[in-house]
Amino acid sequence: MQTNPSQPAKPNVTDSDEAQRPAADVALQAAVGAGVEICFANPGTTEMPLVAALDRVERLRPVLGLFEGVCTGAADGYARITRKPALTLLHLGPGFANGIANLHNARRAHSPVVNIIGDHASWHLRYDAPLTSDIVSLASPVSRWVRSVGSAERAASDLIDAIDASVADGGAGASLIYPVDFQTGRVASSEHGEWTRQARFDEVEDAVVETTVERLRRAEAPLFLLGGGALSPSGQSAAARLAEAHGGVCYAETFPALAARGGGLADIDRLPYFPEKAIATLDEADLVVLVGAREPVAYFGYEGIASELAPAGKLHRLSDVSQDGASALERVANALRLPAARSVTSADAAPEPGPLTPGRIGDAIASALPEDSIVSAEGASCSYALYTASSRAKRHRIMTNTGGALGQGLPCGLGAALAAPEQSVWCLQSDGSAQYTIQTLWTMVRENLPMVILIASNRRYAVLQTELRRIGVESFGRAATSLTNLSDPELDWVSLARGYGVSAESAETVEELLAAMDRAKQSQQPYLIEMRY
Amino acid sequence: MQTNPSQPAKPNVTDSDEAQRPAADVALQAAVGAGVEICFANPGTTEMPLVAALDRVERLRPVLGLFEGVCTGAADGYARITRKPALTLLHLGPGFANGIANLHNARRAHSPVVNIIGDHASWHLRYDAPLTSDIVSLASPVSRWVRSVGSAERAASDLIDAIDASVADGGAGASLIYPVDFQTGRVASSEHGEWTRQARFDEVEDAVVETTVERLRRAEAPLFLLGGGALSPSGQSAAARLAEAHGGVCYAETFPALAARGGGLADIDRLPYFPEKAIATLDEADLVVLVGAREPVAYFGYEGIASELAPAGKLHRLSDVSQDGASALERVANALRLPAARSVTSADAAPEPGPLTPGRIGDAIASALPEDSIVSAEGASCSYALYTASSRAKRHRIMTNTGGALGQGLPCGLGAALAAPEQSVWCLQSDGSAQYTIQTLWTMVRENLPMVILIASNRRYAVLQTELRRIGVESFGRAATSLTNLSDPELDWVSLARGYGVSAESAETVEELLAAMDRAKQSQQPYLIEMRY
Repeated sequence: MQTNPSQPAKPNVTDSDEAQRPAADVALQAAVGAGVEICFANPGTTEMPLVAALDRVERLRPVLGLFEGVCTGAADGYARITRKPALTLLHLGPGFANGIANLHNARRAHSPVVNIIGDHASWHLRYDAPLTSDIVSLASPVSRWVRSVGSAERAASDLIDAIDASVADGGAGASLIYPVDFQTGRVASSEHGEWTRQARFDEVEDAVVETTVERLRRAEAPLFLLGGGALSPSGQSAAARLAEAHGGVCYAETFPALAARGGGLADIDRLPYFPEKAIATLDEADLVVLVGAREPVAYFGYEGIASELAPAGKLHRLSDVSQDGASALERVANALRLPAARSVTSADAAPEPGPLTPGRIGDAIASALPEDSIVSAEGASCSYALYTASSRAKRHRIMTNTGGALGQGLPCGLGAALAAPEQSVWCLQSDGSAQYTIQTLWTMVRENLPMVILIASNRRYAVLQTELRRIGVESFGRAATSLTNLSDPELDWVSLARGYGVSAESAETVEELLAAMDRAKQSQQPYLIEMRY
Repeated sequence: MQTNPSQPAKPNVTDSDEAQRPAADVALQAAVGAGVEICFANPGTTEMPLVAALDRVERLRPVLGLFEGVCTGAADGYARITRKPALTLLHLGPGFANGIANLHNARRAHSPVVNIIGDHASWHLRYDAPLTSDIVSLASPVSRWVRSVGSAERAASDLIDAIDASVADGGAGASLIYPVDFQTGRVASSEHGEWTRQARFDEVEDAVVETTVERLRRAEAPLFLLGGGALSPSGQSAAARLAEAHGGVCYAETFPALAARGGGLADIDRLPYFPEKAIATLDEADLVVLVGAREPVAYFGYEGIASELAPAGKLHRLSDVSQDGASALERVANALRLPAARSVTSADAAPEPGPLTPGRIGDAIASALPEDSIVSAEGASCSYALYTASSRAKRHRIMTNTGGALGQGLPCGLGAALAAPEQSVWCLQSDGSAQYTIQTLWTMVRENLPMVILIASNRRYAVLQTELRRIGVESFGRAATSLTNLSDPELDWVSLARGYGVSAESAETVEELLAAMDRAKQSQQPYLIEMRY
């Protein structure tokens, strides 16, 4: 057998030094010290020393996804709830690539997600073995920070650097490429201590608060556009106080990462999705105060319609996503000596009976949500309907698809359920987009999570049919029909769920849905309900 | 409503010129002229003008995948069988990203795959709307050619350039980013004519054939390592003639894109996967003739084992993957005035009865494969066993996972079935890797493909357990167990298949498997068999 001339002769091994451990162990232990609790993993051969290390490192829970998008979406959901670094462990470039879509959503949610991407042994890379690819090129679009570990000695501090990068400036993705030989190389224990990292909000400068006060005093119709931390209960309450006192209105950004709803909070709906409606809404304001939200832009460009939904002169920024918008709003309200906003009395949330429609689905779910629950919502019609209805629900938090990459809802709910085991986590998920990460159901069973999964089943990509009509297609031919319909064959959701070990049933009426949700809430296991409409 | 100052005022519209059509129509029509027959699509809003165009362009069949990896894997399979450009239609960066894993495999298979990636309107990109990402960075690692369409007028010729790039030099991926405004812009009809593109093989130079003859005359133990076109029946027959006359042996590369097997062909097995065995095999040769195969390298780097499996001095290249290795082998054999190789008489392929094992599964499938069938094989133990057994089967062709990205087998089989509707297409697929693109089952039903899907169900990532043992892990702790086992919960394959509309059953013995395969062969629809072992 030949030996490899370019391969170093087992560096860093000093048999007499028993204090030395595999670098993978030391790096993961350092991550635990920095507050990492869960590793969302779909590992391969180049991550086996890290898997072996997971057996030896305490307080780091491995969670297996059957597909990488499950791992990255779950990391996003976990990070949205905890603001702590969420770790994934993925296999080289092609495995990592399967996680990119949900990392894109995580990027738009400013979630602190740290990816460890295993790689070939450093001396093996040059041979361009089958799984070799340009990982940096793949990782860069979804990572604020990318680095390749250059030695076993550097592994722990590189991972800490990745974690620090992930929680800085409001939260972002960080990707560490980790060659297998630098996982097995033995190194001294890490000197990184115990210091839990978390994406924290910076204080808004006094000058900005003062400018905001002045602009509000002159405004006749202010609009508060809330995002990020401003969608906490205190942020929404302060915004509602300001809007009430100044004859203004409040909106959440169209796709919030996490927004509190219901339980007496003011009804702050999302800025409309289609640009015509959003522009009309913003046109009525003479001042748009951005609180943790971006300047509003059209989701897609449509001929003849502005991409920028409000003129720059009308925009005023109180806080960006890395800042504490909620307390900034309170400071503004206090400076204006405003009374507390009135608490909203929840109207009767009982839905009208009959065959399911998006509106009735929204009402029915809003009536069923338990106190302090979390909803992961993905999909067009029903998620909007729920958001509208959910101001009448008990207090809950809702996560939406921030980046538009499909398949975010189920994994994001999974991550939230792992982050908040005491809370009831629901997924409201359209049928088409559920398919992109359907394997999530399996991990929900494995991790014993009593989640409620509601599939909005209309057997089509309804949004695409809407978009086709918007570009003037009046009758759909063979291609447009086949590419936007899911009815041939119909997905059998009950069988699919059972395939992954999930109890399931179908509902076609409000009465059936309410009864099914009662059963789901009693279940100690994940429970899926197909809502056919 | 505001209008966008940066948006051009409807360029290229001359209402009086009725000869002008949307650029999307003209581009797709040009692609049809170049031999594109199928569009493997998972479109979104930015591809709607292309979808509308598919309704108007004739002879271009749209095939919907519920997940982008289904589309790219199917394109790979289609391209392996036809060598013609296989078109995908994917949605922006994040949608495209879901297709990267199978594009990586396609790249290693040298498959001519052309991706059309829709993009925001060119004037909308600067606003960094939620779905905006760096598509070039994502596409480059899996594309030899990447371009963004710069105007409606250029769209058709850009697509033709992409097609030409895909079939050049043995075949490769080509990605065309296509902003939506340049899809709708109206242009004159294309002047691109009808000329079917195909990845063709160049002739090997006479001098190389002569050098090969000379080296063979001096060799005492030549080894022919065959890849690409050399794995056609004629290539294998010529290699077998040469090996027989010169006391040599033949091997297929470890992961061939497409190899003929059985039906009297010489038994040319794959070069072993693990480097120790591959090195030992190559060590016995004094000359390694590369025919369409790459220099053999270790799949992964292992400490103390060479990455290059044979010393460079022993290697001699007759042809690379872009060249006609089969005819080059015949030219070498003819120059040496060799007799025809003996046809191999198929031994009795009847498998021994009893509980299923990988070996028995391989034997049973080999005995059941119909004449002129195609097998898409992914997964470790059973695929090797089938390859070994299949020399005794009727003549068939086998496709393997060329790049190591999981989830290649089902989509690749789907693409082959669409490419070769007269042939029986079988998938031999391990349970773990099947999950990465499980949504493929749905498209098999929609497209009415009577495929046979064999799931090798051992409820674990067996290869990872092997790799853990290779790095010295003797007993698996909680993490190593949970990250390499799929038994908690077990996947219910019969329910999963039914969820997608596929008939299914389970088999635990050879007798049950043989009977199930009989039923599958009678079925006019896809039929899944879980093989539990």
